[in-house]
Amino acid sequence: MEPIARSPSRTTMVMETIRLRIASRALLPGAKLPSIRKLAAALKVSTSTVVEAYERLVGDGTIQSRPGSGFYVAQHAGATAIPFSVADAGPKRDRAIDPFWVSRQSLEADAQDAKPGCGWLPPSWLPEDGVRRALRTLSRAKSPVLSEYGSPLGLAPLRQLIGRRMGERGIDASPDQILLSESGTQAIDLLCRLLLEPGDTVLVDDPCYFNFHALLRAHRAKIVGVPYTPTGPDIDAFATAVADHRPRLYITNSAIHNPTGAILSPVTAHRVLKIAEQSNVVIIEDDIFADFERSPAPRLAAFDGLDRVIHIGSFSKTLSASGRCGFIAAKPEWIDSLTDLKIATTFGGGRLTAELVYGVLSDGSYRKHLEVLRQRLATTMQTVSTRLQNLGVTPWLEPQAGMFLWCRLPDDRDAADVARSALQRGLVLAPGNAFSLSQSATTFMRFNVSQMQEPHVFDILRDVLSAPHAPKDRP
Amino acid sequence: MEPIARSPSRTTMVMETIRLRIASRALLPGAKLPSIRKLAAALKVSTSTVVEAYERLVGDGTIQSRPGSGFYVAQHAGATAIPFSVADAGPKRDRAIDPFWVSRQSLEADAQDAKPGCGWLPPSWLPEDGVRRALRTLSRAKSPVLSEYGSPLGLAPLRQLIGRRMGERGIDASPDQILLSESGTQAIDLLCRLLLEPGDTVLVDDPCYFNFHALLRAHRAKIVGVPYTPTGPDIDAFATAVADHRPRLYITNSAIHNPTGAILSPVTAHRVLKIAEQSNVVIIEDDIFADFERSPAPRLAAFDGLDRVIHIGSFSKTLSASGRCGFIAAKPEWIDSLTDLKIATTFGGGRLTAELVYGVLSDGSYRKHLEVLRQRLATTMQTVSTRLQNLGVTPWLEPQAGMFLWCRLPDDRDAADVARSALQRGLVLAPGNAFSLSQSATTFMRFNVSQMQEPHVFDILRDVLSAPHAPKDRP
Repeated sequence: MEPIARSPSRTTMVMETIRLRIASRALLPGAKLPSIRKLAAALKVSTSTVVEAYERLVGDGTIQSRPGSGFYVAQHAGATAIPFSVADAGPKRDRAIDPFWVSRQSLEADAQDAKPGCGWLPPSWLPEDGVRRALRTLSRAKSPVLSEYGSPLGLAPLRQLIGRRMGERGIDASPDQILLSESGTQAIDLLCRLLLEPGDTVLVDDPCYFNFHALLRAHRAKIVGVPYTPTGPDIDAFATAVADHRPRLYITNSAIHNPTGAILSPVTAHRVLKIAEQSNVVIIEDDIFADFERSPAPRLAAFDGLDRVIHIGSFSKTLSASGRCGFIAAKPEWIDSLTDLKIATTFGGGRLTAELVYGVLSDGSYRKHLEVLRQRLATTMQTVSTRLQNLGVTPWLEPQAGMFLWCRLPDDRDAADVARSALQRGLVLAPGNAFSLSQSATTFMRFNVSQMQEPHVFDILRDVLSAPHAPKDRP
Repeated sequence: MEPIARSPSRTTMVMETIRLRIASRALLPGAKLPSIRKLAAALKVSTSTVVEAYERLVGDGTIQSRPGSGFYVAQHAGATAIPFSVADAGPKRDRAIDPFWVSRQSLEADAQDAKPGCGWLPPSWLPEDGVRRALRTLSRAKSPVLSEYGSPLGLAPLRQLIGRRMGERGIDASPDQILLSESGTQAIDLLCRLLLEPGDTVLVDDPCYFNFHALLRAHRAKIVGVPYTPTGPDIDAFATAVADHRPRLYITNSAIHNPTGAILSPVTAHRVLKIAEQSNVVIIEDDIFADFERSPAPRLAAFDGLDRVIHIGSFSKTLSASGRCGFIAAKPEWIDSLTDLKIATTFGGGRLTAELVYGVLSDGSYRKHLEVLRQRLATTMQTVSTRLQNLGVTPWLEPQAGMFLWCRLPDDRDAADVARSALQRGLVLAPGNAFSLSQSATTFMRFNVSQMQEPHVFDILRDVLSAPHAPKDRP
């Protein structure tokens, strides 16, 4: 088959999509690639574009063609191929929308870009004065604080403080049951290392935080989605998924679900735990949005007593994402194995950022900051919700707290198309399918209300939504 | 078989050893355990102690007995068993000497313990004033520095500075070829995720940094050791190992080898690269001790031009281990895949510690600090070497730089026994076999000369070495 000349950017996009899936372990060495027709339909490109991309990937050794059978990922393709049309300094604006799309667009955005798609607050919403004070205090700390590795479990006073804060949410955890990590993401990563064998099945919510997909693929897990309802996972679907797939793990957010803003109800929590107990499923409860909460919602870890539920948290969302620090609370026998894994993979933890977080948390002003922040978010949530509804964008529910609004676009618009157009105008959005394993959130979008303070955000949204567009179901 | 009453601490030690090997993936689910006789000999306990330990591990579901065949690790033993005689606050002084022993003893040591076994400098040897200045500067930084995630590649000015410093060592790397990581260990961990499939073989030096063993086991790699000589790996053994085991990776330190202090010679470097090229072996060159160097030694990455050699470094050893920051320099097509893996497993990197490191490195005083430090280490190395030789402890070579002295103990003393006795006296040592895959360094010990400034260190060493001891080859 002769390669056919095609728009280089589309061919490159297809090649990058495949390389990404290989790098992120969504496609393992030896795996069969999607058929040309199927991939063309999925990526909305012509079959000849896919043909050229596959030919070129064969040419550089990333994939292999087996005549009569199709295309397969080469052994060690993730490492030895000559992949990726490389990293110029700026964001890759033509990258396919996959689990990394939102992450990279948000993290690589220019300072002047608006980022309603990102998952964090603007700096001015964070307790900057507290962080500055804590840094000044640290600059006068004793030498070991500035120079030495952290202890394996991590800074003891911070673990005690985290234990007390968990107690306020009904979760009993002694400081010895708490292990500090570099971040909430790293906490889940360590747990996957401990609990998963390659090929194990993990349940996630559909939709869920998009990075769960990327992280679980890096662990070669089989991922199964359970539809999420306004009160937690759809319990019948959860029971069926457990029976059919015998998962090892279920990863979820209980209080303030990402991306929907939903809150787990006590009755759903109880049922989820009962099913998990009967089938020996371990649950990771990712509670990184805890400090946004205005009234305490149920926690699986509180009902379960940290038996099969592992509770994780971090301070990136309400304190600082620059000085990173997360934690794992679990039963003692797991903490010791996790500590060894932490040493093996990161050696001593970052003591300085733990000291910084402790400094800010133990400063009386942090609680006041949270009160102001929650009120500000509540007001903003209402304003933004109204303005979005004026554009025909409909919230799936009105969240009780947090920064996210999960919305349906008007006219069944394809959120990925809208996100691509918005990006041309300097607006980073988070299209629904980045969160959805089943790709069933095509017309949904997650909005971060704190990042929508500038009026031009709504002007761009209006323009993009009212622009002529191809019907959603074109081939 | 009825369990026989035994000293609980020995039984517990055996149980912990097995659980650790399971947690660290040295023993995978379904793997056969060592025979009772073999384990008893290896751990220097009676066979009845091992019998009781195995019985108890069967009892709690960690392992299974198959009559007539032996004992096997249970499926999911690492996670569901009720393991570990839990973490009281203090260090576990009776823990078996495995790759984690030195790490945990060093990281968990009381402030009053002396730690000639640890791998870092005392705080007073580090550029504390520079760190304090950098913290004060950070306390006045712009808001995003204090609040936002780092960019995927990490702080651009720091990557530029690292590139220039690498240039001084003959390695060409543009800032786009440099990815910041949370630490040197995390850099290797990311690379293992990218490059290894479970079951792949990795070559390491024998002896090598003990944590390489733990880290590679966490990646389910098969580890093969190559004897290390004063000028690099034994090149014939290296060639044989490559031919016999077809390794995917070779991990080494070029300049200032840990634990021996040896330096790679140009001729060995050239031969290693030639063999690696012929057999498509990727090399990770861990250069975290670079700043100790007094005259520049050859780097594999300089000869190879970052083609199949990946160069990693960190600032934990000469700047601060509290504010952690490492880096990976590699060919561009690998950096992009690594960036996705970094996002999947840690999301945004720690911006604050990167800013801190940049602040200290770009402060003119850091170079002056290094000059003073190198001189101080050279003087100390000489004094400590003489004092050790007075105790009959013989250096394997006189290192040209760095903090480590790799020494043979007098009278073929078992270094693990000596380390256990010393620990009772508050002295943390690093016995040779923790570094040796072949367990052929029984009579060796690694000494960190910077941690031997207190005269009582030598008093304790003298006492422990002159105490009556069982002959090395008892059963």
